[in-house]
Amino acid sequence: MNDAAAPQGRDGIRHGGDLTQAARLFPDAPAPWIDLSTGINPWPYPLPTLPPSAWAALPTRGAMDALLAAAAGAYGAPGPDSLIAAPGSELLIQTLPRLRPRGEVAIVGPTYGDHTRAWSAGGHRVRLVPAPEGAPDTADVLVVCNPNNPDGRTWGPAELLDRAADLAARGGWLVVDEAYADLDPGRSLCGHAGRPGLILLRSFGKFFGLGGLRLGFMLAPAPLLDAVRAELGAWAVSGPALAVGAVALADLDWQAETRRRLAAAADALDGMVRGVGLPVVGGTALYRLLDAGDARHLWRHLAQSGLWTRSFPEHRGREGWLRLGLPPDRDAVDRLARALASFAKCQGGWPPSQ
Amino acid sequence: MNDAAAPQGRDGIRHGGDLTQAARLFPDAPAPWIDLSTGINPWPYPLPTLPPSAWAALPTRGAMDALLAAAAGAYGAPGPDSLIAAPGSELLIQTLPRLRPRGEVAIVGPTYGDHTRAWSAGGHRVRLVPAPEGAPDTADVLVVCNPNNPDGRTWGPAELLDRAADLAARGGWLVVDEAYADLDPGRSLCGHAGRPGLILLRSFGKFFGLGGLRLGFMLAPAPLLDAVRAELGAWAVSGPALAVGAVALADLDWQAETRRRLAAAADALDGMVRGVGLPVVGGTALYRLLDAGDARHLWRHLAQSGLWTRSFPEHRGREGWLRLGLPPDRDAVDRLARALASFAKCQGGWPPSQ
Repeated sequence: MNDAAAPQGRDGIRHGGDLTQAARLFPDAPAPWIDLSTGINPWPYPLPTLPPSAWAALPTRGAMDALLAAAAGAYGAPGPDSLIAAPGSELLIQTLPRLRPRGEVAIVGPTYGDHTRAWSAGGHRVRLVPAPEGAPDTADVLVVCNPNNPDGRTWGPAELLDRAADLAARGGWLVVDEAYADLDPGRSLCGHAGRPGLILLRSFGKFFGLGGLRLGFMLAPAPLLDAVRAELGAWAVSGPALAVGAVALADLDWQAETRRRLAAAADALDGMVRGVGLPVVGGTALYRLLDAGDARHLWRHLAQSGLWTRSFPEHRGREGWLRLGLPPDRDAVDRLARALASFAKCQGGWPPSQ
Repeated sequence: MNDAAAPQGRDGIRHGGDLTQAARLFPDAPAPWIDLSTGINPWPYPLPTLPPSAWAALPTRGAMDALLAAAAGAYGAPGPDSLIAAPGSELLIQTLPRLRPRGEVAIVGPTYGDHTRAWSAGGHRVRLVPAPEGAPDTADVLVVCNPNNPDGRTWGPAELLDRAADLAARGGWLVVDEAYADLDPGRSLCGHAGRPGLILLRSFGKFFGLGGLRLGFMLAPAPLLDAVRAELGAWAVSGPALAVGAVALADLDWQAETRRRLAAAADALDGMVRGVGLPVVGGTALYRLLDAGDARHLWRHLAQSGLWTRSFPEHRGREGWLRLGLPPDRDAVDRLARALASFAKCQGGWPPSQ
């Protein structure tokens, strides 16, 4: 929605991915803008030909069943009954806080900000904790992004399953946002879907490069799946999302090849960044995190060069962080390399002398 | 979602539009199935060419602004700030009952069943009333589908605005579901959007023949728009829906021509139905309502002929109702005509001698 995506925070940006904002804030930047502000794969799954009915008819149960079967296969879930689909995992993030009494929620952070916003808006007491083991025993819900955005930290399955069992024993939830788990399926907990207290979120658009399609999944015990289904109504997922998702999630070859391609691109990006003296401090194969001392200057310099990235002024103590998505083509690589080089130069070398 | 669309009710059908169910229940029916079970325009708006970014990138504020401007124009709303978009008006129907304290809700019916289901699931006390003036003074919320589905009843703007004012004066809402108002824009209240207590829902997919796209709108006072925006999160509407919706809603010529075409098709369908002795008792230009005495027999006969329609066994006293969508082409017209004729014949003339 428009207001929900409205500028917020010190740099005027709350979410990545909106070049409308970029062009408004930096009208003199060279066109076309290059969007490096999200963790979305710049090489999308090739769209299959859609039958006219995917657009025209109300989504059918058969189309939903095909999607869920493909998703269960791709994610290693116990079966198609262990998950439901939604128009983006973002909507699931908004939904979860409504489904339990107000309580205490620990979120491992800094992380994707909408978890904090959604639980806070739902009236829960939210605190950020540095790691799962830092969550207080009084927390009813623990939220972990695995791998984490933007720093790429990960936690092992055994540790998280122990946490889920602890929380479940007192009626709590472990919410694991696996938005970037496609990159490293071995860390996913989807094979354990259905365990008490364990809620997993998956995002389709990031790894498959189709963020506009709006498709995400939740894996959880059956009663919770039923509750979310009831919130979403019968047809929240579009026909094109059902059709494209079913084909793409079943294409395991493309997924394996894409993992290799993204890893190579991330390595190349690291080389470029380190080549101008900037340290890479984290990330995944879909985004890299730099520490730029004070990232506002670099963010602004890149924006003035038509390169849209993400800084994190709201993360106290992490004001040096700048996140870079993968440059989509040779031109983007060249422009980014030139902009980084000119920044390093006008700072009189790197790290800046202060 | 799969369970939400699961078979319900005496005929095993809760919503129209799912041929997966049709084929399962009537495996021996001649293929291909002809779907007359919804009120969706069988002649969709021609899909424009979508830019790759509509699929790949997260939906932008600019794309949303363009959609809302086109929608405000098409609906005669005061401006783009008077409405918000959602992935289908169905999701809005699910959302509204959560946004006010539990209370008493009067729904003018029989009507589209998800209003009753959503308000009941939200813990409100729901009663069906035969007309807006039948709502008790104690009702906090009055829900009216205008025109109504399936019987096509309509209420005038002045009467409904009076009702909205009464309800607003005691903190209540008038919810007007204008899912079929594109057919008769003069009855729409969208020009009055923003009045206290007045909530309007619009559906994109029905009139534009793109039910799979998932796009709907709510028009209401600003605080309520803000509350629903917060529930939906930043990106619930897909990029394809934003792009197609903006083009289609701005195409007023297509809309005018489509109104004429649908009216002519509805007239022709009435002629066919009356030609075999069945009375048409209501409907809109997107669906016609017959009274078949006991509609189950006709529904089953049509299904065995590969024609999927809607009966309403759950509407007490309306068990004779059968709803027909518009046959999409010559073949569908012929098959429907043959099936109706053979039914009338094996019933030994019409009305059946009992």
